[in-house]
Amino acid sequence: MGRIIWQLGCLGSKPSKFNLTIFLLSQLSVVLGPHDVKVGIKALGICGSDVHHFKTMRCANFIVKKPMVIGHECAGIIEEVGSEVKSLAVGDRVALEPGISCQRCNLCRDGRYNLCPEMKFFGSPPTNGSLANKVVHPANLCFKLPENVSLEEGAMCEPLSVGVHACRRAEVGPETNVLIMGAGPIGLVTLLAARAFGSPRIVIVDVDDCRLSIAKNLGADEIVQVSTNIQDMGEEVAKIQNAMASKIDVSFDCVGFNKTMSTALNATGTGGKVCLIGLAQSEMTIPLTMAAVREVDVIGIFRYRNTWPLCIEFLRTGKIDVKPLITHRFGFSQKGIEDAFQTSAAGGNAIKVMFNL
Amino acid sequence: MGRIIWQLGCLGSKPSKFNLTIFLLSQLSVVLGPHDVKVGIKALGICGSDVHHFKTMRCANFIVKKPMVIGHECAGIIEEVGSEVKSLAVGDRVALEPGISCQRCNLCRDGRYNLCPEMKFFGSPPTNGSLANKVVHPANLCFKLPENVSLEEGAMCEPLSVGVHACRRAEVGPETNVLIMGAGPIGLVTLLAARAFGSPRIVIVDVDDCRLSIAKNLGADEIVQVSTNIQDMGEEVAKIQNAMASKIDVSFDCVGFNKTMSTALNATGTGGKVCLIGLAQSEMTIPLTMAAVREVDVIGIFRYRNTWPLCIEFLRTGKIDVKPLITHRFGFSQKGIEDAFQTSAAGGNAIKVMFNL
Amino acid sequence: MGRIIWQLGCLGSKPSKFNLTIFLLSQLSVVLGPHDVKVGIKALGICGSDVHHFKTMRCANFIVKKPMVIGHECAGIIEEVGSEVKSLAVGDRVALEPGISCQRCNLCRDGRYNLCPEMKFFGSPPTNGSLANKVVHPANLCFKLPENVSLEEGAMCEPLSVGVHACRRAEVGPETNVLIMGAGPIGLVTLLAARAFGSPRIVIVDVDDCRLSIAKNLGADEIVQVSTNIQDMGEEVAKIQNAMASKIDVSFDCVGFNKTMSTALNATGTGGKVCLIGLAQSEMTIPLTMAAVREVDVIGIFRYRNTWPLCIEFLRTGKIDVKPLITHRFGFSQKGIEDAFQTSAAGGNAIKVMFNL
Amino acid sequence: MGRIIWQLGCLGSKPSKFNLTIFLLSQLSVVLGPHDVKVGIKALGICGSDVHHFKTMRCANFIVKKPMVIGHECAGIIEEVGSEVKSLAVGDRVALEPGISCQRCNLCRDGRYNLCPEMKFFGSPPTNGSLANKVVHPANLCFKLPENVSLEEGAMCEPLSVGVHACRRAEVGPETNVLIMGAGPIGLVTLLAARAFGSPRIVIVDVDDCRLSIAKNLGADEIVQVSTNIQDMGEEVAKIQNAMASKIDVSFDCVGFNKTMSTALNATGTGGKVCLIGLAQSEMTIPLTMAAVREVDVIGIFRYRNTWPLCIEFLRTGKIDVKPLITHRFGFSQKGIEDAFQTSAAGGNAIKVMFNL
Repeated sequence: MGRIIWQLGCLGSKPSKFNLTIFLLSQLSVVLGPHDVKVGIKALGICGSDVHHFKTMRCANFIVKKPMVIGHECAGIIEEVGSEVKSLAVGDRVALEPGISCQRCNLCRDGRYNLCPEMKFFGSPPTNGSLANKVVHPANLCFKLPENVSLEEGAMCEPLSVGVHACRRAEVGPETNVLIMGAGPIGLVTLLAARAFGSPRIVIVDVDDCRLSIAKNLGADEIVQVSTNIQDMGEEVAKIQNAMASKIDVSFDCVGFNKTMSTALNATGTGGKVCLIGLAQSEMTIPLTMAAVREVDVIGIFRYRNTWPLCIEFLRTGKIDVKPLITHRFGFSQKGIEDAFQTSAAGGNAIKVMFNL
Repeated sequence: MGRIIWQLGCLGSKPSKFNLTIFLLSQLSVVLGPHDVKVGIKALGICGSDVHHFKTMRCANFIVKKPMVIGHECAGIIEEVGSEVKSLAVGDRVALEPGISCQRCNLCRDGRYNLCPEMKFFGSPPTNGSLANKVVHPANLCFKLPENVSLEEGAMCEPLSVGVHACRRAEVGPETNVLIMGAGPIGLVTLLAARAFGSPRIVIVDVDDCRLSIAKNLGADEIVQVSTNIQDMGEEVAKIQNAMASKIDVSFDCVGFNKTMSTALNATGTGGKVCLIGLAQSEMTIPLTMAAVREVDVIGIFRYRNTWPLCIEFLRTGKIDVKPLITHRFGFSQKGIEDAFQTSAAGGNAIKVMFNL
Repeated sequence: MGRIIWQLGCLGSKPSKFNLTIFLLSQLSVVLGPHDVKVGIKALGICGSDVHHFKTMRCANFIVKKPMVIGHECAGIIEEVGSEVKSLAVGDRVALEPGISCQRCNLCRDGRYNLCPEMKFFGSPPTNGSLANKVVHPANLCFKLPENVSLEEGAMCEPLSVGVHACRRAEVGPETNVLIMGAGPIGLVTLLAARAFGSPRIVIVDVDDCRLSIAKNLGADEIVQVSTNIQDMGEEVAKIQNAMASKIDVSFDCVGFNKTMSTALNATGTGGKVCLIGLAQSEMTIPLTMAAVREVDVIGIFRYRNTWPLCIEFLRTGKIDVKPLITHRFGFSQKGIEDAFQTSAAGGNAIKVMFNL
Repeated sequence: MGRIIWQLGCLGSKPSKFNLTIFLLSQLSVVLGPHDVKVGIKALGICGSDVHHFKTMRCANFIVKKPMVIGHECAGIIEEVGSEVKSLAVGDRVALEPGISCQRCNLCRDGRYNLCPEMKFFGSPPTNGSLANKVVHPANLCFKLPENVSLEEGAMCEPLSVGVHACRRAEVGPETNVLIMGAGPIGLVTLLAARAFGSPRIVIVDVDDCRLSIAKNLGADEIVQVSTNIQDMGEEVAKIQNAMASKIDVSFDCVGFNKTMSTALNATGTGGKVCLIGLAQSEMTIPLTMAAVREVDVIGIFRYRNTWPLCIEFLRTGKIDVKPLITHRFGFSQKGIEDAFQTSAAGGNAIKVMFNL
């Protein structure tokens, strides 16, 4: 795995074979536009998609074709600001929203810029990521961190944004009983987001009791352990509904298997919504018709839009505490990078693996 | 099939074995409540679900357990009004909305009464239908027809309501390019409704070129003939998208097979919606994930709510003409009933089979 | 004032001239319908409109024409249930939603039943209110209280519902900075509701520093004292915006004077909303155009709909604590009634005056 | 008036005192950015705000401080395209959306770019307008016209956009009965837009019977002539409601006087909306409270967003015909400009005055 790490992930004052990525970054800094800033990256988390890129050189439809910097969950300190930048100053601590949309297409102009077909997103081939010492980025995608929010927490705005965007699209509020399928990193940030959006009751489901107990500690009202056997589904749906002890209004499938989605569709109450976030399977066999006739809608999610200010506000006020999710930390050395990716790929008790640069 | 017809559908001055249904109806007329009216039914259309009840004694989760009157697409003339009824008078020609919801549950009070768990719906077991000479019904579910709308057209408000409710939920408007999978009765009323909601461009898809030419005559901008072979799907999606020659914003699957739903999901543009109306399969194997990451949502539909006034307005103003859909007419005799159901069940060039009582 | 009190508010084992109201109530209990319950009222709060009815024999367009029972903020204990009532039992403690809508008109069927033109609402002429020992009421408007919610808190669901409905219509959530004009009872329940809906920052404005300090204790982030002089408005808007230190997304005018509404319109950020709850003036002179060109919408509010379950949930979980609002308590005797209304009418440090029956 | 015309409106090969504006335009053409195009303007309509700028050197909060080109309703032919422009080619006929938003602020990113505080809008001080032989403009704000849509019609997309945006914000559809106060240019485009959005019934109101008969010819269902005397309002509201003969769901006040807005508020049905478009008065005295308690909301409008494609589609399909609105045409000479502005300012039978360049 090491080779791929170096091809994909490394940069900075490193041996000659990495010159390509170094060169790209230097070149970027040269063209600091009037609305750009240069940021020294200080904290960066590893995402499942980063691990995916490593192992398979692809993630969904994105295919890695040449050496490329990965990483997109990051925060850092402003080192230089473009001539027109007024909202930020050198020394400011910022969290970075990783995607640069075209701002010209219909989707951008309509406010759905996360769906922009020309999106340039850190670490999505062929765009270089931010597992780097320095990046140049548009100022309006760099969000100043309050004093009581650390750079690591700032980097956590990225995964948290997935949960926030899902809660917004599913319209979670103080009247929304929430079911979450899957207690991995995305399930957990969705749990935190749903709580912050006011959900009065959250049940979370997983196969792994270790993850469930983390979820419980993070504030889930009830946890339900399930099997991977589809035959158990009927019984498990009843168990989940009992655990909720009320109508399930919105379910988030943070896994994306036939069984998790089927469970969500069957468990959700009439007139509710199922939001599909996990992408484990591309073709799904599911009891969609029986959900449709109860007007249970299925909501799709792609990344997020306009989420950083809200995430930072949640962190500042303490409505959300992401610190318990950061389970491992590594330095930005060759060994650190190798260990970090191995830890993240191993799963187990690793939720979020973070680099401190 | 004859026997079942008589068990399920018949009523009126008929032989002794039908006394049960006669009795039920007489009893209903006795208890004309203060907010009820008695209607002499004059036109009634046969729905696919009626045929289903005949052939299989069930439809989806609704199971016929004892002799029962079927039928629910109807219009008639007021013969008696309850003491508190002010909006209707004897002699008024009315179209009937067939479902009586409880008006007490949360879904009713929230305006989603079509999802009421205590709904009493004409011809859905165990509630008797309206293939009858007379029915007693709440006055506020009987909608007066303007002079230029016939009783037959009034009966067509029921199937048309399905299309109207689907267009409302999918938010069809003058900016919505619409794809319709299936040119059967529901596909065709959805076509008419989508046009009346302002859709500038509608492509309709079917395997049957006879149905497609009907759709073309009813105003579809483009028709696309497809196979039942799932292997052709990729090519067909391209053909459909070419036929639209623009982004597909909303797709209605009026069939509900794996292939029709998969085609709809793949063909619909980023940020669009797929509305599942047809119920051909209860378990579906579909490329849901790839649609979800483009934020294509799946909208479920159950019947309709508050649609009669709008349907009648569409008919009155001529925005919608349902008359071409009425392909066959029968009298309300034993032979008429037998022939009518055989014609409807045979499909072919029969779109809507109508009784004139 | 006493005479009017007796005409309007009294009932029970009282002198002969009040026989009319006693009679009405007895009669009501006689016709306990199958879906009704009989409730022994145990707690009832006095609303500003009750005081208005006393003093002027009218409130807005509602005019008192004959002796009538007033009161509508109430909770009690079930004494009898109708034959079809399954959700409630004798002895249950319940809060009462005071309005009975027709459930037949278009607004009811569309879920906006609070706007029903045939609404029968406790204490709105000519409908008798619930300042009574017993009332008969539809079971689905009686909401069971959890063990940890008192009857007095149950009665508070009514004023709290106004704030909840306003927050729903204005779509308050975790991203909504809220300005509240007026720290009277409605301003305070709106403050509590906005917080429970997740508002991160709430500024409340009043002329009275005593009320402002109550608001501060109830959780307002900032308080701003203003004058009644319209000339101070420009300066006060600046002060309010400084106090918010961020964009004002939604303003609630819980007073309804030219000055409060003008202040709200000017202070609210571009694209925001002003919700008018207070009804102090029927004709208003306001800078509407300058707000409209910033697409600041004005949202109207009438009572509430479907709010009791959410209010009770807020009380049960402690997200909202209404107990500090109950400043005075009286018994249900002649003297108690007289004192209660005098206290409520006097204002001052009286927020909510409550009867214990 | 001539002098002001020349200061504000003129350009091209003209005497020396206009060198400033010529220079500005030349300079603009020099910096044709990669995403820009150069357009030879061929048709330009005069807006009331242009006339306002002439007469008073200001319009609302926008104040003219130095010589400036005005005009913003325009269409033309592409003469040059920037290096990255792929969607347009030299010779294409295009309609121009006149406002360039920053695309970086929160409002832009949220899709509400019409509210962008840094908007650069043709002819809004200090930004030069498009009453010019040539302009440089972002390619994504230039929309290709179909063959059957003329350049003059293309220029009409701008005023039409106001009606389209208003109909979108007010959610006009096939169930929306519409009242329009004012039959001037904006009232008339709102009429056309409301019809295209499917409104089944439109009543339009004005003091001028000549304008009303134009409205009638353009498709208004009913016209109602009113006075300017506020005392007539009660009677006029009744007349308007009778003319509608059904509930008024949405009213557009395209004038903006106390009386027009009061009439709209009183006439609109419970639960409806009043959309304020006209800006005749900045401070308004209106019966807002009585509207608010019927949950009649007031919707503000500023210009439009993402409307050109829809306007062009309406013109292409003939759903909207703007040609009858173009009542006068002038050439782009000194005399033509003087005559054009005098004609537009005179009002009377002049609806839209158009330059052909």
